[in-house]
Amino acid sequence: MAFTFDWKEDRNLTLLVDFYEITMANGYLRNGVENKTAYFDMFFRKVPDDGGFCIMAGLQQLIEYMKNLKFTKEDIEFLKSKNEFDDTFINYLENFEFTCDVWAIPEGTPIFPGEPLVIVKGPIMQAQFVETMILLTINHQTLIATKANRIVRAAQGKPVLEFGSRRAQGYDGAIFGARAAYIGGCTSTACTIAEKLFGIPAVGTMAHSWVQLFDNEIDAFRAWARAYPDNCLLLVDTYNVLKSGIPNAIKVFNEELVPKGIRPKGIRIDSGDIKYLTEKARKMLDDAGFNDCSIVISNSLDEYIIRDVLSQGAKIDSFGVGERLITAKSEPVFGGVYKLVAVEENGKIVPKIKISENAEKITNPGFKQIYRLFDKSTNKAIADLITFAGEVIDESKPLKIFDPIYTWKKKTITNFYAKKLLIKIFDKGKCIYNSPSVKEIRDFSISQMDTLWDEVLRFENPHNFYVDLSLKLWTAKQKLLKKFTLSEE
Amino acid sequence: MAFTFDWKEDRNLTLLVDFYEITMANGYLRNGVENKTAYFDMFFRKVPDDGGFCIMAGLQQLIEYMKNLKFTKEDIEFLKSKNEFDDTFINYLENFEFTCDVWAIPEGTPIFPGEPLVIVKGPIMQAQFVETMILLTINHQTLIATKANRIVRAAQGKPVLEFGSRRAQGYDGAIFGARAAYIGGCTSTACTIAEKLFGIPAVGTMAHSWVQLFDNEIDAFRAWARAYPDNCLLLVDTYNVLKSGIPNAIKVFNEELVPKGIRPKGIRIDSGDIKYLTEKARKMLDDAGFNDCSIVISNSLDEYIIRDVLSQGAKIDSFGVGERLITAKSEPVFGGVYKLVAVEENGKIVPKIKISENAEKITNPGFKQIYRLFDKSTNKAIADLITFAGEVIDESKPLKIFDPIYTWKKKTITNFYAKKLLIKIFDKGKCIYNSPSVKEIRDFSISQMDTLWDEVLRFENPHNFYVDLSLKLWTAKQKLLKKFTLSEE
Repeated sequence: MAFTFDWKEDRNLTLLVDFYEITMANGYLRNGVENKTAYFDMFFRKVPDDGGFCIMAGLQQLIEYMKNLKFTKEDIEFLKSKNEFDDTFINYLENFEFTCDVWAIPEGTPIFPGEPLVIVKGPIMQAQFVETMILLTINHQTLIATKANRIVRAAQGKPVLEFGSRRAQGYDGAIFGARAAYIGGCTSTACTIAEKLFGIPAVGTMAHSWVQLFDNEIDAFRAWARAYPDNCLLLVDTYNVLKSGIPNAIKVFNEELVPKGIRPKGIRIDSGDIKYLTEKARKMLDDAGFNDCSIVISNSLDEYIIRDVLSQGAKIDSFGVGERLITAKSEPVFGGVYKLVAVEENGKIVPKIKISENAEKITNPGFKQIYRLFDKSTNKAIADLITFAGEVIDESKPLKIFDPIYTWKKKTITNFYAKKLLIKIFDKGKCIYNSPSVKEIRDFSISQMDTLWDEVLRFENPHNFYVDLSLKLWTAKQKLLKKFTLSEE
Repeated sequence: MAFTFDWKEDRNLTLLVDFYEITMANGYLRNGVENKTAYFDMFFRKVPDDGGFCIMAGLQQLIEYMKNLKFTKEDIEFLKSKNEFDDTFINYLENFEFTCDVWAIPEGTPIFPGEPLVIVKGPIMQAQFVETMILLTINHQTLIATKANRIVRAAQGKPVLEFGSRRAQGYDGAIFGARAAYIGGCTSTACTIAEKLFGIPAVGTMAHSWVQLFDNEIDAFRAWARAYPDNCLLLVDTYNVLKSGIPNAIKVFNEELVPKGIRPKGIRIDSGDIKYLTEKARKMLDDAGFNDCSIVISNSLDEYIIRDVLSQGAKIDSFGVGERLITAKSEPVFGGVYKLVAVEENGKIVPKIKISENAEKITNPGFKQIYRLFDKSTNKAIADLITFAGEVIDESKPLKIFDPIYTWKKKTITNFYAKKLLIKIFDKGKCIYNSPSVKEIRDFSISQMDTLWDEVLRFENPHNFYVDLSLKLWTAKQKLLKKFTLSEE
């Protein structure tokens, strides 16, 4: 059961904005360019953990933010108190209305470096202002969804439970982290409010403190089995897993559940050597007739440990994953950026470029669309093609694509179909998109794994999925590059 | 100007709780032990980045949470919908009233592994329930305050500006991260709402998009200098710092500001080799007569890079630090835990212990206090002594302390004074503590650096500050340990 969730009704995050967005906005006004139409791309440059792809997430929260973007009386009062802004600017903010067009890639989609995930078109003052929240929202949830996707794949179909709230970076880190982890493929969460808000199943049984509260372990287990005969999952590592925890659990299962015809749910181990303990535990449980009793593991897990212990034959039925998932510990930053890519001059789109000595850091200019090209016979994704918006792909003819840097690397694609990745979300400030439920996003994301080749899914040295530019876009980019190179000589 | 801030009035985070806290609570009730008085300690085991100490932070938000802890109608409706809980339990939650005693170490205090940072005493149902929010709140802000403290110390007195919102892990990661960074010693933030809520100065000027919006860099700089003559800090790396950015900045300073008798504020460099560029930039600015013009650097900085470039003689006036601060990238998890340490039986406190094969993971039993012992002549902290609550330190006599594991390591302390670290925050559910302002906490935290020896402040292999147990506490712990060891043999 999910309750309606509209966090902007409860929270005013309008001023969760880098202060330079406000000084620039005021500056645009002072220079009379506030209504110049600008195009911004949000994109990223590198997949965390050197993985092959990321999972788009966070769009629903970004939409909520944009839908409700306004300055309260308190916000205005605060900005006035800074004594840095003109009255006309303050007046503009008081009557602020979001009128941008926004395109985005739906949540759950596999995404690749260099692709615009969100495009904003509108008056520069507005399109600039939303930068911080676009980055913050998409960076965070995409980071966690991507990490969860890795961990879930490592678990080879065994359920992964998100257990990280206590180690998250702030409340939203826990709440939206649980959401993103579910999108990435986790089956459930320990974070109760995530079920209330998003319908993600919340699970949990006992902590070590339950066991400690009683005079000894077996009394604690008995108390639990009596309180929850139908949900009897015992934490067996408070004192000693093999000498005390498992024997006591078996005894209590036999005393309290078997006579009532109830099967125990399982045991949880939260410390020690996973491979060694689970093999021994499995045997002890099996020998006692409890081969249907699950073993849950929850000790500083991540995709590498899960892969290792499974390959060693550890006997595990599900994984509770905490801090290393909820903070994406191995690489806790998703480096999305938001760059100006075009402005309109006299109704014409003029592409803009940001130069860098590092080729990957040079932006792709112009107002764009992304096509994902699928093989008709296998439904596998072959490549993504970034084009100018409005370019049409003729699926009936062979399509030549080429690497945008090593241009001699070419490929001709036949027997394919093309899907647009960027969907229009806002039309002149009006939301025209309905976010699917989080469950639907998760199902979609899981289904997308079948469209990726094993070479892209691999953890170590995955194949670089092709993200190419259309000839038209590539040519325009070269022209702009040449212009700046010449002007420097 | 700081506005009143009471986030609990706006947000209901009661169900931001690990689900097992709720199943346990219901289980306590089913077993009739719900009102047993329990003592829990929140503590941590390891300083991130192998540093010498941490900075306590987050208490104010924890207090807000505890003050406002109640279950709304929606929360109750949600929990009922799970069909797992008894009517008496639901009824208990509907009438929930927080009645615990809470002690905590004030924010800004240097803290060490093994020390209780927060102690909760109360009916087990309540004291257990607050676990997730205690850990989440203190873990997050302490992590960031500690990281900020490191970065600020590396900067050797030069201002450090917190610039990380866009890469934070969720909205609270940005907002409370900015708060914690300020407590850790940052001078300001880019996060506007952090000024509105906490009075932390918010700063910022322009992004690359400002420069790109105009036809060329010099027009962009002119537009800025005209809009903000008194706050003219120019971002000089959109195209080429030395060939274009600095020459254009100097030209605009001379054209737009000098004739009006206004001095430029500075330049900002966001890419490239910091040491090389700042030395060249400094010389160019000085040669042009702008030796009062600051150089701000903001490119993936952390304490190690700052220390390195300063030791190489880079010419930097202030540092904007983003993702590596706001996520504590090098070690993004603060591993605080919350453990049952005692229960009351017939009005007597019975200490409890959690055993582990790892000596550091064994908990310190009982209801405790911490004394920090200071040298009277230097005011430097000599050691912390964890005692049972109620133990008194006689400052007039030499005090013998000893290492709790390597007990032959002894020290006799003379000419000292002792300060209690744990302050009572809630008395039977009533808050009796007024949080200082964030500015006051920051000042206090900075002043505390003088109490630490250089050996503790060092980044690499810092001295392990002594955290010892009183003889009484140590003896009680050994007794409990022996009891469990015997019961296993």
